[in-house]
Amino acid sequence: MLTLYTYFRSSAAYRVRIALNLKGLPYDASPVHLLRDGGQQHQPAYREKSPLGTVPVLEDDGAVLTQSLAIVEYLDETHPQPPLLPADPLGRARVRAIAQTIACDIHPVNNLRILQYLAREFGASQDQKDAWYRHWVNEGLAAVEKLLAGDPGTGTFCHGDAPTLADCCLIPQVFNARRFNCPLDQWPTLRRIVAACEVLDAFRKAAPDQQPDAE
Amino acid sequence: MLTLYTYFRSSAAYRVRIALNLKGLPYDASPVHLLRDGGQQHQPAYREKSPLGTVPVLEDDGAVLTQSLAIVEYLDETHPQPPLLPADPLGRARVRAIAQTIACDIHPVNNLRILQYLAREFGASQDQKDAWYRHWVNEGLAAVEKLLAGDPGTGTFCHGDAPTLADCCLIPQVFNARRFNCPLDQWPTLRRIVAACEVLDAFRKAAPDQQPDAE
Repeated sequence: MLTLYTYFRSSAAYRVRIALNLKGLPYDASPVHLLRDGGQQHQPAYREKSPLGTVPVLEDDGAVLTQSLAIVEYLDETHPQPPLLPADPLGRARVRAIAQTIACDIHPVNNLRILQYLAREFGASQDQKDAWYRHWVNEGLAAVEKLLAGDPGTGTFCHGDAPTLADCCLIPQVFNARRFNCPLDQWPTLRRIVAACEVLDAFRKAAPDQQPDAE
Repeated sequence: MLTLYTYFRSSAAYRVRIALNLKGLPYDASPVHLLRDGGQQHQPAYREKSPLGTVPVLEDDGAVLTQSLAIVEYLDETHPQPPLLPADPLGRARVRAIAQTIACDIHPVNNLRILQYLAREFGASQDQKDAWYRHWVNEGLAAVEKLLAGDPGTGTFCHGDAPTLADCCLIPQVFNARRFNCPLDQWPTLRRIVAACEVLDAFRKAAPDQQPDAE
């Protein structure tokens, strides 16, 4: 039995929800509210599962897994069909590099705990936090567009004609970009791929507004 | 032929240098000075290889690979001995989660471009930048200690009795922690593993002060 500790708006949890849906794996959703009760992710019982107090956590028959990309690769290894990584090492490296450009170089810098620190220690206003957010999204998604545009590996999706780990990361990041009013106009390849993902049930059912804890 | 675009102090490049050494793979080091000439990583020829202007980049017979964790996994798939990931999916997930706790949740937040933004947009002083740096290192390495301490998967190294991707990430992060005077006293498991790594040639030869571009 799979249990996903999730928050509807968490971009990292959203990645894993997409992967679970693409694999057709049923799971129990256990919501962790990142803003309520001073942040439910900081409660001791949850911190036992996730030392850093981040979502998602996946429990698989008692085994506790953290870190969204590690979780998606685990799902891909334990449930190989449909594959979320290509078979060839160069293709796998390309998919992982696109995923990590988002998951390492964009998302962590804009995480809640960072924005809270900016407000607390630097007195950052909402405008300054929004500017920070948009800056890293713009820089990062421009890099993703360059990784995608004109590369023969790019197909209907980030890599080839079926969704991969890269698409599992791209869609949640684009959701965040829209939420913070970052225009996507400059990135035609990215927009085309997003449109291809958004018509698929696996992506639609993983969206924040489709979650049991959506507000 | 392998060419590594590297900077002696880059923590991400340091990870790949360790992996190359553990695999016994010779490579050409092509230094990219992150502070000289306004940042050599921003020069157009380099940005063609790395859209975000980050190091490392690995070239393997003309193929261009970005993102340190993707590169290490590529090396592990193309040169399987000695393995840098365990064979079982849960073990692989654990090693990747430790690696990603460092590579996603500690390192990007403390990257040069972030510290430069804090100074530019928030007028952060050196003391404030140091406090920022130490805050995320402390929070992150405390989480790594919890992932390591008392887990039966932990051995001489982060996972078992041979170095893995997790150790490739841990040592550069500890190097950075020391550079910014973050005490490691509270993390005995981490310190024990660091000591086990530091006597190995693969780790020693990858250290910043052993690089051709060291200052």
